[in-house]
Order: sequence, then C-alpha cells, then structure tokens
Amino acid sequence: MPMMPVTDSMFLLVETREHPMHVGGLQLFRKPEGAGPDYLSTLRHDLLENSNVRSIFRRRPAKPVNTLGHVAWSDDSELDLDYHFRHSALPQPGRIRELLELTSRWHSTLLDRHRPLWEIHLVEGLQDGRFAMYSKIHHALLDGVSALRHLQNTLSEDPDARDCPPPWGSRAPQRARPARNPRSLFSTAGSSLSQLAGLAPAAARVANEAVREQRLTLPLQAPKTMLNVPIGGARRFAAQSWPLERVRAIATASGASRNDVVLAMCSGALRDYLIEQRALPDAPLIAMVPVSLRGKSDAREASGNNIGALLCNLGTDQSDPAARLAVIQRSMRDGKRIFKELTPLQTLLLSGVNVAALGASPIPGFVGHTPPPFNVVISNVPGPRKQMYWNGAQLDGVYPASVLLDGQALNITLTSNGDNLDFGITGCRRSVPHLQRILTHLDTALSELEAATK
Amino acid sequence: MPMMPVTDSMFLLVETREHPMHVGGLQLFRKPEGAGPDYLSTLRHDLLENSNVRSIFRRRPAKPVNTLGHVAWSDDSELDLDYHFRHSALPQPGRIRELLELTSRWHSTLLDRHRPLWEIHLVEGLQDGRFAMYSKIHHALLDGVSALRHLQNTLSEDPDARDCPPPWGSRAPQRARPARNPRSLFSTAGSSLSQLAGLAPAAARVANEAVREQRLTLPLQAPKTMLNVPIGGARRFAAQSWPLERVRAIATASGASRNDVVLAMCSGALRDYLIEQRALPDAPLIAMVPVSLRGKSDAREASGNNIGALLCNLGTDQSDPAARLAVIQRSMRDGKRIFKELTPLQTLLLSGVNVAALGASPIPGFVGHTPPPFNVVISNVPGPRKQMYWNGAQLDGVYPASVLLDGQALNITLTSNGDNLDFGITGCRRSVPHLQRILTHLDTALSELEAATK
Repeated sequence: MPMMPVTDSMFLLVETREHPMHVGGLQLFRKPEGAGPDYLSTLRHDLLENSNVRSIFRRRPAKPVNTLGHVAWSDDSELDLDYHFRHSALPQPGRIRELLELTSRWHSTLLDRHRPLWEIHLVEGLQDGRFAMYSKIHHALLDGVSALRHLQNTLSEDPDARDCPPPWGSRAPQRARPARNPRSLFSTAGSSLSQLAGLAPAAARVANEAVREQRLTLPLQAPKTMLNVPIGGARRFAAQSWPLERVRAIATASGASRNDVVLAMCSGALRDYLIEQRALPDAPLIAMVPVSLRGKSDAREASGNNIGALLCNLGTDQSDPAARLAVIQRSMRDGKRIFKELTPLQTLLLSGVNVAALGASPIPGFVGHTPPPFNVVISNVPGPRKQMYWNGAQLDGVYPASVLLDGQALNITLTSNGDNLDFGITGCRRSVPHLQRILTHLDTALSELEAATK
Repeated sequence: MPMMPVTDSMFLLVETREHPMHVGGLQLFRKPEGAGPDYLSTLRHDLLENSNVRSIFRRRPAKPVNTLGHVAWSDDSELDLDYHFRHSALPQPGRIRELLELTSRWHSTLLDRHRPLWEIHLVEGLQDGRFAMYSKIHHALLDGVSALRHLQNTLSEDPDARDCPPPWGSRAPQRARPARNPRSLFSTAGSSLSQLAGLAPAAARVANEAVREQRLTLPLQAPKTMLNVPIGGARRFAAQSWPLERVRAIATASGASRNDVVLAMCSGALRDYLIEQRALPDAPLIAMVPVSLRGKSDAREASGNNIGALLCNLGTDQSDPAARLAVIQRSMRDGKRIFKELTPLQTLLLSGVNVAALGASPIPGFVGHTPPPFNVVISNVPGPRKQMYWNGAQLDGVYPASVLLDGQALNITLTSNGDNLDFGITGCRRSVPHLQRILTHLDTALSELEAATK
C-alpha cells in the first residue's frame, strides 16, 4: 500500500494541541555481539558525526505560527542534531511496559515548529539488554507509510554491514535503488495555497455532505461506540509482534486472505475489549481499511494518489470467531469502497470527519450526536520480508504510532517485518482506558481463530 | 518576595506554542539510609495511593481551546494521577548534565489542556545515587513563587517524618499554618472576562506606550543584546548551588546587600558569557529585578498585588568586579522603580513587552528594532532557612525554571535553601547557546568578588 508523498502543508494548518499531526515508529533492536556498556552513547555520538542530512530533515515552517497563507518551508541553517536525536532511558525494571509508557508520552507532545519537524529517541535501559528507537516526524513531511519506508531504507539485510546511515541520513547515491528512490517518498515544497484551494474544500465538502446533510449514503451503517468521541491531546501506545506463520496458517485453512485474518484478530480483540468496558454495541463495528488502488506491478512506486478505503463489517456482534471471519471475508470481497483515489490528507480528514479543524464552523455536540461513518481505522502496511539489521543490531520489531482525529479515538496499524507481524495501537488516553489490554485480546483472538480453523 | 495568586486565566489566553506559560522546579534529593533498588518505584506507588488531591491539581480549563471568553475552570472528575506523576530515568552516565538535558526537554513542551495543568517527574539513574523531581505547573494555577512555596510546604524539617504529602496533596488541615495558608496561594476560579477588561488592556497600553510611542521614559537605557530577540519554543535549563556563606562574607566585607552580591555574580557571569559569544555591548546591561513592595511584617502574606520592579545597572561595561559591585549597589540604592504594584501577569507581560500575544496587532520586526526596556530578569526568591526533608529524603537543592517571553530569552531565578543559594537558569534554546557555561561564569564571578573584597 504505497502512499503518495504529502505535497502540501495542510497538516500544519489543521494541527491543534488536541490533534497532533505527527506519525511515529518504535523500533526494537538487539545489540550486536560484544557490545559494551557504552554501546548506545558511542553509537549516538558516531551517528551525530553524520552531517549528510536529507533536505526533509532540515526543513522547517518559514512562519511557525498557524496562519493560513504562511505555509512556505525554509531551510534550518543551524540544524542542532543534538536537539533532534536524543538519548533517553527507561526507569526500572525496564520492561516493555515502561517502554510503551514512555513512547505514549513522546507521542503526545507537539513538535517545535521553530525547528525541523522531527525527533528521534535512542532508548537504553531495557532489562533484556535490547535497545529501542522512537522516531517522530510531522505528517506534513512524511506520511506514516513513507516514514516506515524511510526507516527501512536505512537498514540492511547484512548483519555485518556497518555503513547504515542515521535516520536523518541516506545511503550514498550510488546505492539508491530506482524502484524505491527515497526522493519520491518525500513531499516537495510547494505553494500550498493553490493546492489547498483544490484539496481542502473538496475534503471538507465531502465530509460536510456525508455528515451534515446526509447526502452521501454510506454502504454500511456504523453504530455509535465509545471509540467515536472527541479526543484529547494525550495518547496511549501499545505494541506487540505475532508470528506471520500463525496468520498464514489460518488463512490457508479458511481460504481467507491474510488481511482478512488480521481483521478478524482485531475484530475479536475489539469485541472482547468492548465487552470488558461494557460498551459493545448490538450492531457490528465497521472498520475503515485503507487499500491501494494500484495493481501489484507498480505497488512499490510510492507516488501518485493511489489510496482508497474499504468499509469492512467486523462482525463483532457474533460470538463465534469463525463466523466473524466469514463476515469479514464476505465484506472485504464485496468491496464496499467509500473513497476512491484519496490523497493521504483526504483519507485522514475523512477518517476523522474533522470539519471544524479546517476552519468550517464547528458544530456543537457534533461528534457526540451524529452516527460515525465507521468505528475504527485498521491499516496493514507491507514491511521488509527479510530479517533486517542496523549497523549490526538486529531489528526485532517496528511498530507504527498513528495520528488520531476527533471521532476516531483508536487506530490499529500493523506492518510485516521478516517472520513477524508487528502491531502498533494508538489510542486517545482519555477515551480508551487500559489500551494495553487490546494486546491480550489480540493474542486470545488469534488462538481462537487457530482453534476454529483447525 | 511573596507574589499574589494569579486570579485569572490570562496565562491560558496568551500562551502559544512558542511561549509556554508553565513554571517549573527541579528538586534534588538524597535517598534515606537503607533505601533499596526499588526505593523510587515503591515511593511512587505509595504516593499514588494518596487520593487527597488539592483542588488546584484537579482543575482543568472547561474549554481547552484557546478562545477568548472560554476561560472557566472545571473539575476533572476522572483524575489520572498515573498520567501526571511519572517515573523517568537518566541515560548513562547519569550526571547532572543528563538531568539538566532531560529537564530542558520537559520544560519545553506544552501541558495538555484536557487535563489538570501539571506534570511531575520522579527521576532515577543519577550516578551519585540521588534522585530528582521535576515539577511543572501552569502559570494560570500557580505563579513560580507560589509553586516553590507549595513544594516547600510538602517538606519537613524532621528527617524522621514520614507523613510528607505528595506534591499534589496537602498536610492535614490542622497542620496548616495561618501565615502560610496554602489556599491563599492559589488562584480562585472566576469570571475572568471582567478581570481581563481591567487588566489586559492596561498592561498592553503601558507596554504600547513604552515601546511604540516612547511616551514612558525609562529611568535607564538598556542596550540591544543577543538576549533581546524573539524566542522559540525550546528551552535550555541549567542549575547549580553555591554556599550562602560565600555570598554573605562578600556582603559583609563590601557593605553591599546579599542581593547586590548575587546581582554582581550574575553581572560578572553575563559579561563573561557575552564576551565569549562576542556579543558584549558597550553600554552596561540593565536587569529587571522584581521586588516586594511590602514591609517585612507582612512579607509572608502571599496575597495582594505587592510586586514592583527595579531597574538595575549591572555595570557589565566595567572589567573590575569591585567596580561592578559598586555600580550595582548604587543603582539598587537609587531604586529606579519602573513598575509599581504590578500583578504577576503585568510583571510578566511588561517583562516581555509581549503585546502581540494579547491580540494587539503585531508589529513586524518589533523585537528586533526597538531598544529593549531591560536586558534580563534576575529574581531572588526566599526559600527555607533550614535543611528540609521529604519522607526522610534530604533536599539537596531546589532550582526554579521560569517562563520566557519574546525579547527576554534568558531568566535567572535563585532561591535560598538551607545553607545554599540555588540558581535556576532558563534560556531559549535557539537564542542562548551553551547556556550551561553561565554556571561556570557564575562560579568565576563569585571567586573574583571574593578576591576583590578580601
């Protein structure tokens, strides 16, 4: 599902304190053999020497204030890498739980618009000896999929390679592969006002029609749930990996696609979570599932508006896992597309029906009283197929942290990584209590699907 | 210098991403005898049990959005202490340098307006075995002096006392001392609009007159310096203690007041710093020094508008430390008051000449082209005279982190603490490079004053 680069600064304009517009990624690494106690600070200092900074990591808003009409970029001539690339540590006992708590905190704060819009934390103190890296970049520079791709491009399949660039750097030009030319993943600076003129009103109009005037008939009717409420600025983030093989086996046994099985995992987990919260609606939850509208041949070409969205009936009203999988399989096969050829911005705007943030008059009680177009976004992003390394450190996991909008307090984004599927779950801290329990429920749902399809 | 409680929400209205309006404090503690490896997490969990939360720590803006006319408070009925009271850790090697780096980062981010406006970090990982606590609270709830007082009130002079409340709690009512009734330190909710009507335009008018129409003749003329520029949102924070006895000895030998000696320390440090930056102006720097306008008898009564400001010639054009001290002594004795009976808000607004943030039309190039009314704020806040303890942990230091405004990129605030003077230096990360060197320069300046007055 290659997404096009974001070619305008709308993400800066719609950002508010309650709706941070950055994407994040948490990577888990195993230290190379023989790494000493100074490994991480040495690594950081070595990487800080790398002054080959991609232009995108030098770019900052020319006018940091949130004013329509001031959306040009300027180059930061005094880039302070020490500010952007930070050394952090976990408190005792240094479990994944402490790591996720810290990641949640980082994912909740706004980036400083007086500087290039990114931060990267190198994290020590995991009790199992591994280290982590949390990366945060503004959606105006890179969308989530491109950010994941970019991180991936700094890695190597060779455990002995020691020439991997830092996250803000790039490989030497001669090593760039045409099919994944990193330049094409990035946004180009541009006079956003003309793009705004075409883009934003269109998105706002569609959203307005869909919700205010009810003219857009949605192919599926989503119930009101606790996940479809106005959100606050704080986030919770949870992450876990499952073996791809387990999902593949269920797919083979049931005749469903791997993505169907993943959706069924999420469906079972959401059902269990909502039952626990005494908030399961009678009607089935509807997921918005972003899909690529291109053929497989050009799927890796990360340019052009080639994103659409399917609405998927998650069958959460069914208690039987096999029945839920069957509902999902049927729903995805029916292909109830709601949006065709969306830009990432439109996908995002429509997913939140975030009209108010665009400057249209806010409608009091809006989110609370109108039925949501769907209940949750579930996004499946292809990742590396092989085991990857970063200067000898083995990549154990890469977990996407997403943007939330009013009315959509939960986002599940997963990516394949070698032999695993890595799930990143981003929630509004206020609206989605005990978010981490969804991990347990995902695990249960996977086991139930295995039992049901054996 | 008791400051009155802030009785309105102006601080919420003038806050922007580049001008966070929270005050901070960094406390350093020695663990009690026999503290084990779990000491800090046990302490945190015990304190989290304390549900006796002061009303001020439950208060959040009723409308989190920055809209004039929506400045009422509401009570957070689902206070999530776990979010506000955080367990953090320093990366290796866990020096004070790493602690200050982390504090700088925390002091740079905005508080979440969907929650009560405070955060407290309990920090482990100092190589010398001590622990730290960084507290951050919005200026709309407590001004810096009141926040320091409040922290102080949770401490005890008794090393064996184990009933000290957490920072959000309070001692049992019967233990409250009338002269320091904590209620009087806090802002009261109120219809801010009427207060705004009287307050904000007045402050804006004074600032306007002072700078735009040049009608207010300042008693001293401040030069333009690198410290008087528009600021960004990121901060640097540095902190260090010096023995009060050293300052006292210089005061006795020279016939100056202790505050004069402190100002002379700052003067020497600023001179050295600006020379190092090749930015020392020919004319002497002018400091704004907040002073209490009350007599000693009611100095501890923390209510009423009793703050004024003196302008002090720091004599930075003089290379001789004794000559600088003499200039400062004379300047403070002359008592060139610029502002009388200011509210903390007015002090703050005028100190930044921050007209634009109030909604008056911004003047392009304003800060850059107009001479500043003064160059730096130096504030000396009385603290505890005895050695204090917090549930057996000895308080080694308490360092104030302040608010910055456009045109005032550096703030020095110090407080007495037992036998020490604890300096907290807050600077704009972009405008004040190598802020920590000011600590070295302060140390040099103190030694030079000792040598000059022997």
